[in-house]
Amino acid sequence: MRILMDERGKKYIARDEEFHTNFGFITKEDMENGKPGDILKTHLGHEFKVLKANINDYIDLMERKCSIILPKDIGIITAFTGMGSGDRVIDAGTGAGATALHFGNIVGKEGEVNSYEIREDFTEIAKRNVENFGLENVHIKCKDITEGIEEKDVDVIFLDLPRPWDVVEHAKEALKIGGYIATYAPYIEQVQVLHKVLKKFGFSDLNTVECNLREIEVKAKGTRPKTRAVGHTGYLTFARNL
Amino acid sequence: MRILMDERGKKYIARDEEFHTNFGFITKEDMENGKPGDILKTHLGHEFKVLKANINDYIDLMERKCSIILPKDIGIITAFTGMGSGDRVIDAGTGAGATALHFGNIVGKEGEVNSYEIREDFTEIAKRNVENFGLENVHIKCKDITEGIEEKDVDVIFLDLPRPWDVVEHAKEALKIGGYIATYAPYIEQVQVLHKVLKKFGFSDLNTVECNLREIEVKAKGTRPKTRAVGHTGYLTFARNL
Amino acid sequence: MRILMDERGKKYIARDEEFHTNFGFITKEDMENGKPGDILKTHLGHEFKVLKANINDYIDLMERKCSIILPKDIGIITAFTGMGSGDRVIDAGTGAGATALHFGNIVGKEGEVNSYEIREDFTEIAKRNVENFGLENVHIKCKDITEGIEEKDVDVIFLDLPRPWDVVEHAKEALKIGGYIATYAPYIEQVQVLHKVLKKFGFSDLNTVECNLREIEVKAKGTRPKTRAVGHTGYLTFARNL
Amino acid sequence: MRILMDERGKKYIARDEEFHTNFGFITKEDMENGKPGDILKTHLGHEFKVLKANINDYIDLMERKCSIILPKDIGIITAFTGMGSGDRVIDAGTGAGATALHFGNIVGKEGEVNSYEIREDFTEIAKRNVENFGLENVHIKCKDITEGIEEKDVDVIFLDLPRPWDVVEHAKEALKIGGYIATYAPYIEQVQVLHKVLKKFGFSDLNTVECNLREIEVKAKGTRPKTRAVGHTGYLTFARNL
Ligand SMILES: C[S@@+](CC[C@H](N)C(=O)[O-])C[C@H]1O[C@@H](n2cnc3c(N)ncnc32)[C@H](O)[C@@H]1O
Ligand SMILES: C[S@@+](CC[C@H](N)C(=O)[O-])C[C@H]1O[C@@H](n2cnc3c(N)ncnc32)[C@H](O)[C@@H]1O
Ligand SMILES: C[S@@+](CC[C@H](N)C(=O)[O-])C[C@H]1O[C@@H](n2cnc3c(N)ncnc32)[C@H](O)[C@@H]1O
Ligand SMILES: C[S@@+](CC[C@H](N)C(=O)[O-])C[C@H]1O[C@@H](n2cnc3c(N)ncnc32)[C@H](O)[C@@H]1O
Repeated sequence: MRILMDERGKKYIARDEEFHTNFGFITKEDMENGKPGDILKTHLGHEFKVLKANINDYIDLMERKCSIILPKDIGIITAFTGMGSGDRVIDAGTGAGATALHFGNIVGKEGEVNSYEIREDFTEIAKRNVENFGLENVHIKCKDITEGIEEKDVDVIFLDLPRPWDVVEHAKEALKIGGYIATYAPYIEQVQVLHKVLKKFGFSDLNTVECNLREIEVKAKGTRPKTRAVGHTGYLTFARNL
Repeated sequence: MRILMDERGKKYIARDEEFHTNFGFITKEDMENGKPGDILKTHLGHEFKVLKANINDYIDLMERKCSIILPKDIGIITAFTGMGSGDRVIDAGTGAGATALHFGNIVGKEGEVNSYEIREDFTEIAKRNVENFGLENVHIKCKDITEGIEEKDVDVIFLDLPRPWDVVEHAKEALKIGGYIATYAPYIEQVQVLHKVLKKFGFSDLNTVECNLREIEVKAKGTRPKTRAVGHTGYLTFARNL
Repeated sequence: MRILMDERGKKYIARDEEFHTNFGFITKEDMENGKPGDILKTHLGHEFKVLKANINDYIDLMERKCSIILPKDIGIITAFTGMGSGDRVIDAGTGAGATALHFGNIVGKEGEVNSYEIREDFTEIAKRNVENFGLENVHIKCKDITEGIEEKDVDVIFLDLPRPWDVVEHAKEALKIGGYIATYAPYIEQVQVLHKVLKKFGFSDLNTVECNLREIEVKAKGTRPKTRAVGHTGYLTFARNL
Repeated sequence: MRILMDERGKKYIARDEEFHTNFGFITKEDMENGKPGDILKTHLGHEFKVLKANINDYIDLMERKCSIILPKDIGIITAFTGMGSGDRVIDAGTGAGATALHFGNIVGKEGEVNSYEIREDFTEIAKRNVENFGLENVHIKCKDITEGIEEKDVDVIFLDLPRPWDVVEHAKEALKIGGYIATYAPYIEQVQVLHKVLKKFGFSDLNTVECNLREIEVKAKGTRPKTRAVGHTGYLTFARNL
């Protein structure tokens, strides 16, 4: 996948077709041949730079009709579970597919992500998003994950849905010994129920965290954390099948 | 790689050799044959469970004589740079190799991590750590990275050393268009110098953050953030070669 | 001072004069006689409750043309300096007088606040604000505080101006043994200069903090920190004349 | 009240009696006559400086057998309620009296603090602490506050006890129109119950916050937040009798 960037830094998904913008158009041929680092010119002479698409660029640009988990939380999930190349991962619900894409990007061709989504419309959007990014290891299924997980011998199960506790028993069966369940939940009441159910089904090393990111402004005027901040996204809970 | 876990949850690196503990010993044969999920018994009848080693388990147990970056910060680095399977990554300084291992775990066989360490003793420790974990895509070099980066067409360059700005010019040349430089630095003065140098060499999208993780206690007595917290580790600065 | 609160909770400063609102008017007589707890009715039958003005109510409603320090930071300043009834306090710059009012409210009739403001227009606004609230122990002066502090034997000196270090030498002379200097500054560079100058003039117990307040939402849907937060206001630096 | 400070900065409560230390003794006469700023010498020639006692100095040195609320939280309580000179305040439970002393220090001679403590031993300790500091406006009562609040027309009621909701109905009756109830509670479950009960008894403007203070290290080596931090003390909940 490639991205085009205009003169002001705005980014666009690059496809193998004529590209129309406010700055003029770029020919199909140029679009097909542009390699990362190349500069493509519109018929009006404006320049667009070709970049190799980074997963974050793509997620920012892709179609989505539901909220997605921020990179800060994705990072905590992948680092705390030790997710790596070759891992087998379950993701639910898919939503527009941001977490599925992030995980697919990490586990690579030797790994696999199976992502469950209960709604058909979201399943379609997510499938398109995965296909356009070109990941073949991410499979989107239109299924209610509370009815069961079809995969076995899984390394990580990530849940971002209102009642993650309904999936804990299935998760226990699907996970490898040593595997992780990870959940994202905005409310502390969800965390409380989850802990009870995780303990009931014998999960170990329960750990709930929240990640507060602060951005620092480094300007000529001076250095300081930014005035505005995100106060809360969700609590991340981890547990292990030991 | 496999891990052994005793009855109290303490973990040990599993090797193909007789294993001696306070709870008795396990035979070489049992050690060689134990698969994740198996229970191995010592001659005194104590049980040890075999687990597939997770990267975090391993880093906790491996030899290290220098400080390592916490998983919270590793997660922000990998998520913000969009590091994934197949990526080519530079890491410096290696230290005991924790960041190199994390990156190697993510980029997989189709990717590659080259990690520079100026000190010979640390280079040796890190090489052993990488070899023992079994990653073949991570290469540790005993080199001063301020003298140059040998690789080209790199996706991510991560720097955890006192004067990251000395590497910015080399980073610019080594990175792909669209690639990221990421640095970890405890002091705000380092961030200030870095921003100047990053701008001087034409990097874009400068972004400095700090990640404050809070652990939540969910107990019978009640739910609350833990009393003790890590107040600061380091500032993470990202910039892009656009 | 009294406050009027309408049926939706909106507050207004109560004066001894006819009071006109979108809900009709209240007579001068009613306005003069209304005591905290009374309900005053407009000629259209709408109700306004009389409250004893709290300092925070008043500051929210008073005239101001410059930024004011938030209650969270006011609280840290007064608690860390141990400000109390009878204390003699210096405040600069006055701005609209929010800090001066808070301090005046605490030090009471036996104490005194002298507040310095370089701009005439702000001095006038602040004087009106102080007079309207009815504090006789707060004196606003139109003076550049870098030219000297006229008072001696002072308990606390609070500085909220761009170059607080220019006042450190004067502060040293004006403070009691055991007295505190406290400053508010948005940029870390200001804190760095300040520390150097505070040490140069023999101040002790230097302490810089930032106060991050998080608001918690307790709703039927669930409990969680609010999504939006203030990421930074200013660094608070304290030092003592020992 | 006065404080003595030795050559290393360690502080001691100064009484009108001979003072014995590791550095020798100071005569009763010198102790009686020492004024803030004076240097008193021991018979061995060591110097002790006399300071006017700040409330924080005193609370650090006084007898206490129970936990006390940190200055950061005291500050939020006093600033958010707008506590000032002349206010009538209720405090419960007293514990060693730290909050009662802070409030007494602010409300001054024209104000009054009534503090309720259920345990006789703590009541005695707190009474001694108040008397030694010399505050005549703080009254410690050995009473269970859940059985009723004797005072009326109160500006602020502060509760630091396990079941603050048991006091809400009494608080409603004791408070002025416009007055505040403020509570400190470590667990989120306490906050949840409290909100229900506060609403039931008609309190307005419910607001729960937590105050996270970060200390900044400004050293020759560099500037950074301190590594260690307090992760949580208690949630502060405010509501108003409107
Ligand atoms: C917030 S979205 C997930 C977003 C996704 N994690 C991301 O960051 O891109 C939650 C999704 O879960 C789906 N969902 C809810 N319950 C489900 C269930 N039982 N099985 C599968 N999907 C479910 C919803 O339809 C919704 O699309
Ligand atoms: C804090 S450690 C790195 C730890 C590592 N990132 C981790 O988390 O495991 C910093 C290392 O950088 C090395 N170093 C310092 N300057 C260097 C240079 N110019 N080139 C290569 N290594 C360097 C030091 O010897 C030290 O081992
Ligand atoms: C941010 S405002 C103060 C706000 C005030 N602390 C509050 O919270 O209400 C800063 C004020 O300092 C004043 N100022 C700047 N330099 C000054 C000086 N040297 N002497 C007195 N006032 C000064 C400015 O005119 C401005 O009104
Ligand atoms: C944590 S301490 C208060 C500390 C105090 N706020 C301070 O910061 O110094 C709580 C106190 O509440 C007292 N207490 C508990 N229930 C009480 C009740 N119903 N009435 C009065 N005091 C009570 C306990 O005995 C204990 O001393």
